[in-house]
Amino acid sequence: MGGSTFGRFFRITTYGESHGGAVGVVVDGVTPGIEISESEIQIQLDRRRPGQSHVTTTRLETDTVHIESGVFKGKTTGTPMMMLIRNKDQQSEAYDDIRNLFRPGHADFTYLKKYGLRDHRGSGRASGRETAARVAAGAVAAKLLARRGVSITAYTKRAAGIECNTVDYDEIEKNIVRACDPEAAKQIIERIIKARDENNSIGGIVECRVTGLPPGLGDPVFDRLDADLAKAIISIGATKGIEFGAGFAAADMTGKDHNDEMDKNGYITNNAGGIIGGISTGEELVFRTVFKPTSSIALPQKTLDVNGNEVVCVTEGRHDPSIFPRAVPVVEAMTAIVLEDHFKAQAALHA
Amino acid sequence: MGGSTFGRFFRITTYGESHGGAVGVVVDGVTPGIEISESEIQIQLDRRRPGQSHVTTTRLETDTVHIESGVFKGKTTGTPMMMLIRNKDQQSEAYDDIRNLFRPGHADFTYLKKYGLRDHRGSGRASGRETAARVAAGAVAAKLLARRGVSITAYTKRAAGIECNTVDYDEIEKNIVRACDPEAAKQIIERIIKARDENNSIGGIVECRVTGLPPGLGDPVFDRLDADLAKAIISIGATKGIEFGAGFAAADMTGKDHNDEMDKNGYITNNAGGIIGGISTGEELVFRTVFKPTSSIALPQKTLDVNGNEVVCVTEGRHDPSIFPRAVPVVEAMTAIVLEDHFKAQAALHA
Amino acid sequence: MGGSTFGRFFRITTYGESHGGAVGVVVDGVTPGIEISESEIQIQLDRRRPGQSHVTTTRLETDTVHIESGVFKGKTTGTPMMMLIRNKDQQSEAYDDIRNLFRPGHADFTYLKKYGLRDHRGSGRASGRETAARVAAGAVAAKLLARRGVSITAYTKRAAGIECNTVDYDEIEKNIVRACDPEAAKQIIERIIKARDENNSIGGIVECRVTGLPPGLGDPVFDRLDADLAKAIISIGATKGIEFGAGFAAADMTGKDHNDEMDKNGYITNNAGGIIGGISTGEELVFRTVFKPTSSIALPQKTLDVNGNEVVCVTEGRHDPSIFPRAVPVVEAMTAIVLEDHFKAQAALHA
Amino acid sequence: MGGSTFGRFFRITTYGESHGGAVGVVVDGVTPGIEISESEIQIQLDRRRPGQSHVTTTRLETDTVHIESGVFKGKTTGTPMMMLIRNKDQQSEAYDDIRNLFRPGHADFTYLKKYGLRDHRGSGRASGRETAARVAAGAVAAKLLARRGVSITAYTKRAAGIECNTVDYDEIEKNIVRACDPEAAKQIIERIIKARDENNSIGGIVECRVTGLPPGLGDPVFDRLDADLAKAIISIGATKGIEFGAGFAAADMTGKDHNDEMDKNGYITNNAGGIIGGISTGEELVFRTVFKPTSSIALPQKTLDVNGNEVVCVTEGRHDPSIFPRAVPVVEAMTAIVLEDHFKAQAALHA
Repeated sequence: MGGSTFGRFFRITTYGESHGGAVGVVVDGVTPGIEISESEIQIQLDRRRPGQSHVTTTRLETDTVHIESGVFKGKTTGTPMMMLIRNKDQQSEAYDDIRNLFRPGHADFTYLKKYGLRDHRGSGRASGRETAARVAAGAVAAKLLARRGVSITAYTKRAAGIECNTVDYDEIEKNIVRACDPEAAKQIIERIIKARDENNSIGGIVECRVTGLPPGLGDPVFDRLDADLAKAIISIGATKGIEFGAGFAAADMTGKDHNDEMDKNGYITNNAGGIIGGISTGEELVFRTVFKPTSSIALPQKTLDVNGNEVVCVTEGRHDPSIFPRAVPVVEAMTAIVLEDHFKAQAALHA
Repeated sequence: MGGSTFGRFFRITTYGESHGGAVGVVVDGVTPGIEISESEIQIQLDRRRPGQSHVTTTRLETDTVHIESGVFKGKTTGTPMMMLIRNKDQQSEAYDDIRNLFRPGHADFTYLKKYGLRDHRGSGRASGRETAARVAAGAVAAKLLARRGVSITAYTKRAAGIECNTVDYDEIEKNIVRACDPEAAKQIIERIIKARDENNSIGGIVECRVTGLPPGLGDPVFDRLDADLAKAIISIGATKGIEFGAGFAAADMTGKDHNDEMDKNGYITNNAGGIIGGISTGEELVFRTVFKPTSSIALPQKTLDVNGNEVVCVTEGRHDPSIFPRAVPVVEAMTAIVLEDHFKAQAALHA
Repeated sequence: MGGSTFGRFFRITTYGESHGGAVGVVVDGVTPGIEISESEIQIQLDRRRPGQSHVTTTRLETDTVHIESGVFKGKTTGTPMMMLIRNKDQQSEAYDDIRNLFRPGHADFTYLKKYGLRDHRGSGRASGRETAARVAAGAVAAKLLARRGVSITAYTKRAAGIECNTVDYDEIEKNIVRACDPEAAKQIIERIIKARDENNSIGGIVECRVTGLPPGLGDPVFDRLDADLAKAIISIGATKGIEFGAGFAAADMTGKDHNDEMDKNGYITNNAGGIIGGISTGEELVFRTVFKPTSSIALPQKTLDVNGNEVVCVTEGRHDPSIFPRAVPVVEAMTAIVLEDHFKAQAALHA
Repeated sequence: MGGSTFGRFFRITTYGESHGGAVGVVVDGVTPGIEISESEIQIQLDRRRPGQSHVTTTRLETDTVHIESGVFKGKTTGTPMMMLIRNKDQQSEAYDDIRNLFRPGHADFTYLKKYGLRDHRGSGRASGRETAARVAAGAVAAKLLARRGVSITAYTKRAAGIECNTVDYDEIEKNIVRACDPEAAKQIIERIIKARDENNSIGGIVECRVTGLPPGLGDPVFDRLDADLAKAIISIGATKGIEFGAGFAAADMTGKDHNDEMDKNGYITNNAGGIIGGISTGEELVFRTVFKPTSSIALPQKTLDVNGNEVVCVTEGRHDPSIFPRAVPVVEAMTAIVLEDHFKAQAALHA
């Protein structure tokens, strides 16, 4: 099975390693007749690409996307879209030192145990680079969703202990950490720079909001909208949790507090985060996910080598001191893929 | 598609409504030649069944399971196991009052929007009763896992603002809220009774731990072990979030704090919660999920009827003032189903 | 995985053995709001059921279907329909003699090799009895298709060396072998009775025609309409082949002969059988499948017992001297399931 | 869904059009640690590629395969293998004439009806060129099967009315039509040349045999080995039927004739073609498929243009007068993919 395919109706299959020839994706089930161009997909890839600011890795990848199939005269044909992103700035030799040891926080040990061998260069398939393929596919999904009036916005909500107190969509792309509050953004950037200078890294919370969803999306009982989003988001490397609406805070609430009452204007509150019984309510969809601090840090850490000897590991190289700013478009992409899938599911059910 | 099938290799398909003839499950992909009996499955169903204590609903269902296929002379044959649980204590007329309105917190509105019609009796397919089928399937999965030395334990970790400070496995089944700390259990029970007396309800957090997992389970990049668990758990009605290991707390940690270093004895810490890069590390698997307060409360709430008129809803009936105590075996069941699936995936990959 | 689930959008999962408690099916993805009753499903089951004439087995099963879920007030709800058919006339002891040997033509040897054990009673899961579940599911699919103006008719086209020379739909249900030509029917019945009297059995070819299909159904490149039909039909026990339109005769034709030209009225010929490039042309869908002679015969045959000893096997019991007459509704059912699936696929693609 | 993914455990996803940038495939679920090289995959592609003899199209494609991911240091890593084959000798302008009409026998009409638009150049996605991707994936599957002692051989069995009377494996690759009988080969070649000279084309039957299969492969009831092979083979463009073992001839046989009896040496006959009850018997797997005559012929044919006007079509261009010689490796490839999938399924079931 392999695990590299996601989605039922709008279905993506990604491939590629950090230091192989390319990463990319096959998108199947695309509505035919939709205008799409490499340049609009590139816009999203540019938001994810390395080297975009001084708080991200300095790896220089242009991440140029090529549509190899599925588009004819600027329109989708309904056949699989294959999008390919060549790897370029590979400094594979930089990984020679870690070839035989397990970097803390990385999937080195687990990949070796799963596969019996591993491509150690730049984490191989476990690299965050794989998410470029998701962003390309997500751009296609977002294009389909735009026709439906659906709009997805993710942003940094909290990092390094700093919480955003306002949610201002206009601010998000104005600061390099994609925080929704300019004051918080400043402080988060300071802390990232401090962490980077200390050879350390920090984590953060990304919140995602979707407007324009009709009520009725989601397939009980397993393919609920929230269940599929949970799988989609937790499948992004470095995420460690997801919560919808009131989320974990619901544990301390009563039914009277948590239940969203209704009046003539619809739901009065939105503790549910836009999903009840696994089906969209028509209210804003709201969820949050947490990205752990980047695993690659240049501080000495205890670990084992492949022979089981205790060694000290210092992960040199060009790493992000925080991953969440570049993860924002990945969260949006996976959300778009799930939503487009559920629109198609609903059409099939009622066909 | 419908959404009632889960799993790739160990695959379950559930059916049934709260007030229909029966609920049940078809389990396909069961290893042949394994001894299994209705009585051992019944043990798990009894932990989930209504009416088991004074903090749960008084609906009287024995939830007796019948194995209709897939077992011959006490052993699995490898063909589909169909398990059927008849509905008995249906007081469908109790739902006549709510036939035409949307109960706050319930899937009444969303089901109507999805399907264009709904079975209003006891929430129909949206009823928590559907989870009985999951528990039956989970008991089969747990039996297969036991052969592998894998053991799954879930328990109430926090509810109504009360946190368990110790995790004592021996206490869990000794208290009616399945809390892992006897002192916390007492306080939680008090608060549930208070909420019930006030016609209100409370939420809670269930933690799940798995021992005996080898490293190497999980299929990057989408069918990660954590991603599949996230889908499985969020597909349980009333859950609003999931987190692994350090979870949302990782947002405030540095890489140095969060990374799990290794020495001769393996991982020194377990902030990852037993999964890195979507693959099991061989450490204890640890995750938490949150159950919202039960939606059915007997306090007056504003809502709409199906014609869009504002009305006041008071949900009378036999409802749980808290759902998490009965949800504990459901969390274990879904965990078992995912894990057995991934053991089979790993065998297929290396075949 | 197990293999007991079929379909992508309109999805069925069957369960049950010949001599277990029941056989049945869960149908997921059913369009909500459609009127359906047990009695109209029963009509199809009655066409398949044993004991319907003197050329079929005398096993007395009423094959009464019960809808256990997914229907409320006579209409589909969009949630899974579980249909259950209890086994009744089980003479399991009749199979004691063959418990330890491999009946020629039967799946005794292969099941044992696959599973390591087997339920020998009435062939267990390999029994043709499993197809009752398919017929029940097919009746639901046919109901959905009728709304679309799609009509499916299968019939015996050839058996025991007798070819039907006319295709008269009105004759099919008038003769007990469901042949489309009354003269041929008479001769086929004679040969079946002769074969039965000689303790032998005969095979036959079933042809299926579908009218009312629009052009455009089928998903290249793997989920072609013909590929999915091929899988569906070959998954019926005892089939050994399928051909579309001109079928195997195309091997001896030229392109000029085989190509279906078009004029104002559409396709002039239909050598394609209604499918080109895996997609329906809008012409009549035509295919044929072959059912091997029933394996159970009361003539002595050489075989092995489970210990590898050579033995002689005489399959006594109540067996069909020919299976194709009862297989006709099964062919229709599987066809209906595939077609409804593809209607939903087309709706999803264009959503 | 789209339909471009096939397989459950060993899963392939193809992409690409005849005149786009490339065709290719992502293969997921590949056993890790297996040596594989582009050159051994190329060997199979060379057997399928155009321009290989004077009875095939003169389109000049080298069909050079590039492994873009999933292989490290000459060994599979267990992550997706993406293989890309660039399109080169595209004479898209040659298709300008047929842009607005429906070529008889081609999927022009059906694609337009399905998608609402089509890429007319070289049949777009409906082109046989897509099968290059299948052959690449099949070469990987065949490599995995070789470890298991499984060997697959397909060949031309009949064409243009000429039947092969012997099956001599050594002859197959010695003649340009891949017939298993040198005398028949000569006659078939003559008839192809005659047909080509008459601007016509011919059809043929390909037989496939597999040795080394153990008994026990196949998942009742839907994912039977024969059902999955039927889907795989019928999904190849231009096939119109498949039969196993005695196949359609079984219609005229009695049970006594058809049943395969057993003695100490196993099955005495093999009318079943190596599969009973959907599960391999351990005997040789034998099936046949029929390829219709190539649709592209340079004779005038009646058809319609996209506006519904009657026109005469003459398909000029570089076309194969017969497709079956190049289809032989495609049949082998799809067979290999199904078999590897079922080996993995069996491992998962018993895990």
